[in-house]
Amino acid sequence: MTTTRREFLTTGAIAGAALAAPGALAASTTANNAMPKLLHHVFFWLKNPESAADRAKLIAGVKSLAAIETIRSIHVGVPASTEKRDVVDNSYHVSELLGFDDVEGQDTYQVHPLHKKFVDEHQHLWSKVVVYDALKVD
Amino acid sequence: MTTTRREFLTTGAIAGAALAAPGALAASTTANNAMPKLLHHVFFWLKNPESAADRAKLIAGVKSLAAIETIRSIHVGVPASTEKRDVVDNSYHVSELLGFDDVEGQDTYQVHPLHKKFVDEHQHLWSKVVVYDALKVD
Repeated sequence: MTTTRREFLTTGAIAGAALAAPGALAASTTANNAMPKLLHHVFFWLKNPESAADRAKLIAGVKSLAAIETIRSIHVGVPASTEKRDVVDNSYHVSELLGFDDVEGQDTYQVHPLHKKFVDEHQHLWSKVVVYDALKVD
Repeated sequence: MTTTRREFLTTGAIAGAALAAPGALAASTTANNAMPKLLHHVFFWLKNPESAADRAKLIAGVKSLAAIETIRSIHVGVPASTEKRDVVDNSYHVSELLGFDDVEGQDTYQVHPLHKKFVDEHQHLWSKVVVYDALKVD
């Protein structure tokens, strides 16, 4: 599955390079196509949000997850300074978006030693975690 | 900004095609690099979750947002059948992840006529919306 997907992307990029001008190639590689099928979005609330050290430790820990082989993309974030609206929840402190090819990829991640190590070493830092798993609809 | 980013991606893809085997090119185009800086993740709860028609209408409406020019990536999803855990909120019905280059891109989207049209034509379908905006930390 993974191999097939990579080969497809690779073939597309090479075909684009061979046949089209740079502008057309850029259009053929829109991020729309690059977005993984399964998104795993985790929001963390720190026990001590005023501690810059705790926040930095959690961010570094989350980034270490990128080494897990089924992860296709990662975005580690903090609340953005977008306009304040009732529907926007900006009370969390650190967010982690992981992309996988499929549900199996996320399952592998959950039981991966690096993920277990991350939880063991960092769970004392957070007071609350909320997770959303979303599967792309075609 | 957009142009610069696209040129960078394009150059990278072409260099990869010229210099490396397909496997190496795939590695050079990891989704890690493709993830936009600002994520805008919206979760919708339908008023009538048992209505397949309402769900389909909302999904089609969310997909129509992709035409807004500041959107760099889009993922329209439904709860994934990952393992059930206390921290996982799978009570929502439709999700929309939009990626932008920066906060300004998201601000432009908020006031864009296509976004306003989407809200006007679809807000009767949902009972609750939760939004998270996350800015990538380097």
